[in-house]
Amino acid sequence: MELKITEVAHLVSGDLEGDSSLTITGIAKIDEASDGQISFISNPKYEKYIKTTNASAVLVSKDFPKTDKTIIRTENPYISFLKILTTFHPQQETLEPGIHESAVVDSSSSVGKDTAVGPNAAIGKRCKVGKNCRIHPGVVISDDVSIGDNVVLYPNATIRERVIIGNNVIIHNGTVLGSDGFGFAREGAMYHKIPQVGTVVIEDDVEIGSNCTIDRATMGETRIKRGAKLDNLIQVAHNVVIGENTVIAAQTGVSGSTKVGSNVVIGGQVGFVGHITIGDNTQIGAQSGVSKDLPSDAVFFGYPARPIMQAKREEAAIRKLPDLLKRISKLEKQLKDR
Amino acid sequence: MELKITEVAHLVSGDLEGDSSLTITGIAKIDEASDGQISFISNPKYEKYIKTTNASAVLVSKDFPKTDKTIIRTENPYISFLKILTTFHPQQETLEPGIHESAVVDSSSSVGKDTAVGPNAAIGKRCKVGKNCRIHPGVVISDDVSIGDNVVLYPNATIRERVIIGNNVIIHNGTVLGSDGFGFAREGAMYHKIPQVGTVVIEDDVEIGSNCTIDRATMGETRIKRGAKLDNLIQVAHNVVIGENTVIAAQTGVSGSTKVGSNVVIGGQVGFVGHITIGDNTQIGAQSGVSKDLPSDAVFFGYPARPIMQAKREEAAIRKLPDLLKRISKLEKQLKDR
Amino acid sequence: MELKITEVAHLVSGDLEGDSSLTITGIAKIDEASDGQISFISNPKYEKYIKTTNASAVLVSKDFPKTDKTIIRTENPYISFLKILTTFHPQQETLEPGIHESAVVDSSSSVGKDTAVGPNAAIGKRCKVGKNCRIHPGVVISDDVSIGDNVVLYPNATIRERVIIGNNVIIHNGTVLGSDGFGFAREGAMYHKIPQVGTVVIEDDVEIGSNCTIDRATMGETRIKRGAKLDNLIQVAHNVVIGENTVIAAQTGVSGSTKVGSNVVIGGQVGFVGHITIGDNTQIGAQSGVSKDLPSDAVFFGYPARPIMQAKREEAAIRKLPDLLKRISKLEKQLKDR
Repeated sequence: MELKITEVAHLVSGDLEGDSSLTITGIAKIDEASDGQISFISNPKYEKYIKTTNASAVLVSKDFPKTDKTIIRTENPYISFLKILTTFHPQQETLEPGIHESAVVDSSSSVGKDTAVGPNAAIGKRCKVGKNCRIHPGVVISDDVSIGDNVVLYPNATIRERVIIGNNVIIHNGTVLGSDGFGFAREGAMYHKIPQVGTVVIEDDVEIGSNCTIDRATMGETRIKRGAKLDNLIQVAHNVVIGENTVIAAQTGVSGSTKVGSNVVIGGQVGFVGHITIGDNTQIGAQSGVSKDLPSDAVFFGYPARPIMQAKREEAAIRKLPDLLKRISKLEKQLKDR
Repeated sequence: MELKITEVAHLVSGDLEGDSSLTITGIAKIDEASDGQISFISNPKYEKYIKTTNASAVLVSKDFPKTDKTIIRTENPYISFLKILTTFHPQQETLEPGIHESAVVDSSSSVGKDTAVGPNAAIGKRCKVGKNCRIHPGVVISDDVSIGDNVVLYPNATIRERVIIGNNVIIHNGTVLGSDGFGFAREGAMYHKIPQVGTVVIEDDVEIGSNCTIDRATMGETRIKRGAKLDNLIQVAHNVVIGENTVIAAQTGVSGSTKVGSNVVIGGQVGFVGHITIGDNTQIGAQSGVSKDLPSDAVFFGYPARPIMQAKREEAAIRKLPDLLKRISKLEKQLKDR
Repeated sequence: MELKITEVAHLVSGDLEGDSSLTITGIAKIDEASDGQISFISNPKYEKYIKTTNASAVLVSKDFPKTDKTIIRTENPYISFLKILTTFHPQQETLEPGIHESAVVDSSSSVGKDTAVGPNAAIGKRCKVGKNCRIHPGVVISDDVSIGDNVVLYPNATIRERVIIGNNVIIHNGTVLGSDGFGFAREGAMYHKIPQVGTVVIEDDVEIGSNCTIDRATMGETRIKRGAKLDNLIQVAHNVVIGENTVIAAQTGVSGSTKVGSNVVIGGQVGFVGHITIGDNTQIGAQSGVSKDLPSDAVFFGYPARPIMQAKREEAAIRKLPDLLKRISKLEKQLKDR
């Protein structure tokens, strides 16, 4: 595929400066680009690459310094780059609309226009699946599930009974929505299962990675709010709420009834105890253990999680600890010797 | 659904005090209940809610203080509550007994009375599946597997060759029983695979959450004993034994040949090294790292896991460490100045 | 099954000493073996068992001390043992070559000689699957996937579009190769998905456990090199490279663009931040948090990961910290009292 540089500038509504006769044949990162490719600089840290990159042209911000390189100035060079990326690598349709003859869809369920149900998928009773969805091979949808429009369920994902999914949601392979919350009542040495009669609600524009487990509520609902993004292998327990546009990295676990605010950024392998509240806009470092409420607009880190400056001070002090032991023994000796 | 309060009292063999003309329309937690609903108080911490709850009636213990509220006294109010919960929210049958026409069951395998095998499930050779089981869509059972009665395998679970499952077992979505243990013999820079010729045994009344991995033994068996309850995304390595009525929270991993006792309670994201023994009735806090044998009837916590009082003392001391550094510098200066 | 001891010695090209009339009926570990079984001693730590084992014969090294026990001396007793293990427990074929009638294979895809495609498996468009592969029930292979010879994909594994798999690769149940990397571009409070247009390459002789997630690259490729062995529930993010013969234990996560060297040994539940490089032959202890580049030939441990001797010294010092606090208070008092 080839685009004239003028076509590229038009595509991103940008201002072209430099050689307007160029032809663009591909895209790449600024330090990996070669002749014919277009790249971008969004982070000031990478500005220096403008002089050394082999890219034929570079997307930059409106206030980027003057340069000999051919550039296209836009409001948000990264977003512009993604637009060109999508043009050069259009999402390939892997499923054709319609229900594959090997799929099993109960006659009491409805499937919207232009939705594809792939080979060996199964849809239970009384489900509603919206328009233009992609239900990939091996996906299982149990009874009474509601799914909006433009939803993608990748192979072998499973959606359990009564789960509700909004519009423009993406669920990756092997992820489970609505398995039973982990609840047992002890009687002597034995445990009785507490029926988990609630459900899971996934709001619009949520994306959940592969092999995650999002448990249904004991009563009421577990809810992932609009625009939240979850990576792979994440555990979300019963009655948890994840706020809007919150981002969670891989292998993190959130225990029962914990409420995570909006625009929170959570690293990988973090653990949250149950029944706590995390404020909006807070950031939590990888592998932290969060054992109590966290305020909004804070940065926490560590095991147990504490304000990041405190955590770093304490970490630095631990590095000095073996030396400290010697200093104290010396002090004790000095005092004794007097 | 509606029940008279007298019917509710009868259902739980409880003693009704207060308004015997009430009608109950649902159930809820004590702090979330509204008019017409019944709730329960089991934990003394919640006793105060008896005065403020909007519930029409409350299940309480035999020795609960006198109150104006309509109450039903029972031996175990929580267990009584679960009985009513199950009455108001009966488990819906999502699969009909019999083998779905899209399922593939090898002719050398047998399936018991009233067992359902759902769409696109597959059962290999020489398997025995008991009575009244629910084999959900997309489940794969390999060859020579033995499954008891009243077993539920949720969608896309997979049971590998020769695994043995008892009665009343529940396995949630995407969980794998019997994949190969992780064993390799090094020869130079290369690894040879050690054939994993053992198996996995799941005893009666075990429940295992979603996307867990329970590996088969190298030789002999990996065993999950009667009544153990495992949450989601848990790793159980080859030749591990999990004791009776032991409870393990999500994302915990148990390395090869470790033996965990009975009635042990293990938090989330805990890691156990291999070849150790954990005593009965011991509790281990979330995110702990257990690197050696633990005794019975103990409470351990931390990384590395140590008795919880010691761990808390050390944690508190670390909090004081940056201040300590200053105090020591001051002492050194004082001594030098003399 | 029975073998004469002379046949066993011949099978492993070993030197028999002792009773050449023995018949071997099975194999077992040295401390679990009973009459009629053969065992092995590879680790000097186990040499003492030669006197107490109930095994009828034992595989030992060429320089093993003289003994009354019947022994077979070989270059590598462990590898010899595996050869006998495989003889007594031959891998049973669980799938017959050919495409099962319930499997869905697109007509544009090709499947090699002696390859088995099991019940309810699905293979998309333009795929090439090599010779003698085992594609188990419920496996889903998306479009444009390339798979070599002698590859085993266990039930419900999923291989996404354009992934490339070499020869002699084993992928266990529920593992996902090629789900989208976790990449979003922020614009205000919202996130735009960064299309993940790269892929995953799995080289020859790789084995990956159950329920792992190996994400496709943003651009370019995520690559698992020849002979690497991954345990269960492991997360490998976009653009990661795992070196040759590197071994990773369960529940470890490697963040985006990190490069792990060759012959690295990584414990369970380890976390790596993104964009770092780990040298060859390095060992990293379980539950470590690796936040920067690590050199080759080193042993690291802890949170954060540091050289193991330093980590142990600091751990020991922390154990003394509560006592240290008392000693400092005493010093302060002594100084004040003068």
